[in-house]
Amino acid sequence: MEINRENISSWLMGLQDSICSALESADGNSKFKEENWTREEGGGGRTRVITDGAVLEKGGVNYSAVFGNAPDFLFREKEHGTSGKANTETKPQFYASGVSIVLHPINPFVPIIHMNVRYFEMDNGTRWLGGGIDLSPHYIVEEDTRFFHTALKAVCDKHNLEYYPKFKHWADEYFYITHRKETRGVGGIFFDRLNDSVNMDFEKNLAFWKDVGLAFAPIYTELITRNKNKNYTDANKHWQLLRRGRYAEFNLVYDKGTKFGLETNGRIESILMSLPKTAGWEYNFVPEKNSPEEATQKLLLKGINWV
Amino acid sequence: MEINRENISSWLMGLQDSICSALESADGNSKFKEENWTREEGGGGRTRVITDGAVLEKGGVNYSAVFGNAPDFLFREKEHGTSGKANTETKPQFYASGVSIVLHPINPFVPIIHMNVRYFEMDNGTRWLGGGIDLSPHYIVEEDTRFFHTALKAVCDKHNLEYYPKFKHWADEYFYITHRKETRGVGGIFFDRLNDSVNMDFEKNLAFWKDVGLAFAPIYTELITRNKNKNYTDANKHWQLLRRGRYAEFNLVYDKGTKFGLETNGRIESILMSLPKTAGWEYNFVPEKNSPEEATQKLLLKGINWV
Repeated sequence: MEINRENISSWLMGLQDSICSALESADGNSKFKEENWTREEGGGGRTRVITDGAVLEKGGVNYSAVFGNAPDFLFREKEHGTSGKANTETKPQFYASGVSIVLHPINPFVPIIHMNVRYFEMDNGTRWLGGGIDLSPHYIVEEDTRFFHTALKAVCDKHNLEYYPKFKHWADEYFYITHRKETRGVGGIFFDRLNDSVNMDFEKNLAFWKDVGLAFAPIYTELITRNKNKNYTDANKHWQLLRRGRYAEFNLVYDKGTKFGLETNGRIESILMSLPKTAGWEYNFVPEKNSPEEATQKLLLKGINWV
Repeated sequence: MEINRENISSWLMGLQDSICSALESADGNSKFKEENWTREEGGGGRTRVITDGAVLEKGGVNYSAVFGNAPDFLFREKEHGTSGKANTETKPQFYASGVSIVLHPINPFVPIIHMNVRYFEMDNGTRWLGGGIDLSPHYIVEEDTRFFHTALKAVCDKHNLEYYPKFKHWADEYFYITHRKETRGVGGIFFDRLNDSVNMDFEKNLAFWKDVGLAFAPIYTELITRNKNKNYTDANKHWQLLRRGRYAEFNLVYDKGTKFGLETNGRIESILMSLPKTAGWEYNFVPEKNSPEEATQKLLLKGINWV
């Protein structure tokens, strides 16, 4: 079968279906609500959100496929010395589809998770894949983090032994809150422009990319099972609120997907579904000495080898 | 007396003192806590935060004066076609001092307020003033908003009849959450590069700028007095949480002061003191028809004439 945007996008919609179904079982209470939307400049999406479940407090599993005039900022990086504006009549066309997930659980011992797989194509024939999965535990449990990274490494190693170290490093660099000098969580894998920059065999890359998407549900449902019945205190909830604040900071200040969405006049409610139901900030909060919060804070670093 | 950076900065520290004192009286319970900090690259500040008062839940009245190599992004705007990087040895020096205030009250009927007055100087002799006051009520009370804008207009009119319309418009444009297509609140006044762009008489501009700073305390304490004893419900608190979410979005995505702070390696806790103790996001929240929330939502527009 030919590989083209249509069947890649169909596959993505299937992935969205299977993930939603797995998450509904794992939650055991709430169901996803679906909204279909269209984008004035071309394309649209199928947003699915879950709210006030037994496990998941707020989250989304979103599919979108948008196209039209490629936004100026896509060219800025490569065209130093010019204004970066292309002539409207000759403006290059883009097509981008993907599935994006962010889940914020109720229990502070269940981690926040993020997954994204995206396909991008320009009308000059260039096309690439991007994606990744990363974990932001409110409390870092070493065993769970090892499990998480080991599972991602297995997905990578199946396709290319260079992928895990490379994409794990990329996640460490990407999910970094520069102004806080801390990582968003324990990282994971992140890759972009696969094909353009890493390996020119699109078909092989596509197989890897699909495996990343498929790895998400089993990994996260296992982490839910392990932690959903843990008891928690008000102090644990308070710390969760502060960690969610950092999560919101990363997404609003640094996240390229959010930026892309805002700059391409994306559907704002779908883009910002990544934000938690509640978040908090406290002036100069410092965790107590030898507390579990301090232990987590100390592990928010790049370059930790978890496998 | 000569006007120089030293006596402008001393005046700013006095302003910080008098505002903190007025706010402590208005709050009646909590006191500001002070922290002095230094910036590695030059300068420092005096951060004052208030937490869990009778009226004020979280806020800061911060003074800072920083200097050193001017950050690259200051030149980018004017140097199209170059990389914007200056040679380190000949790098221009800057000096910037100011007072910044954000206050988040407990009662949803007391508005959030923001004020900033800033002085900026380059070693080539260029210097300018910037500042403004703007109000973000969780519930817009027309009478209070008229009072607020009328007070700002009086400050402006005393100095230049063109200032209020010009700077009111500027605030409408500046405090706009583009991706939400709504203003952050009811605006106020905003101005920048006063001297450079508007009026070359630095002494006269300085007098106006000082009056803006001095107007803050009486205006806000009046708004506190008017609203602090109003009863509120859980639904009012919920709406407050969502409005605070929008406030956080604006500050993290658009605010130039925040950006400047992050890009000049400013003191992060002082910069982000503007964020509320708690904030919230709900997927696709739409206020009930004919509710006070809907009434407020409908007034989050540019260009309303409040005087």
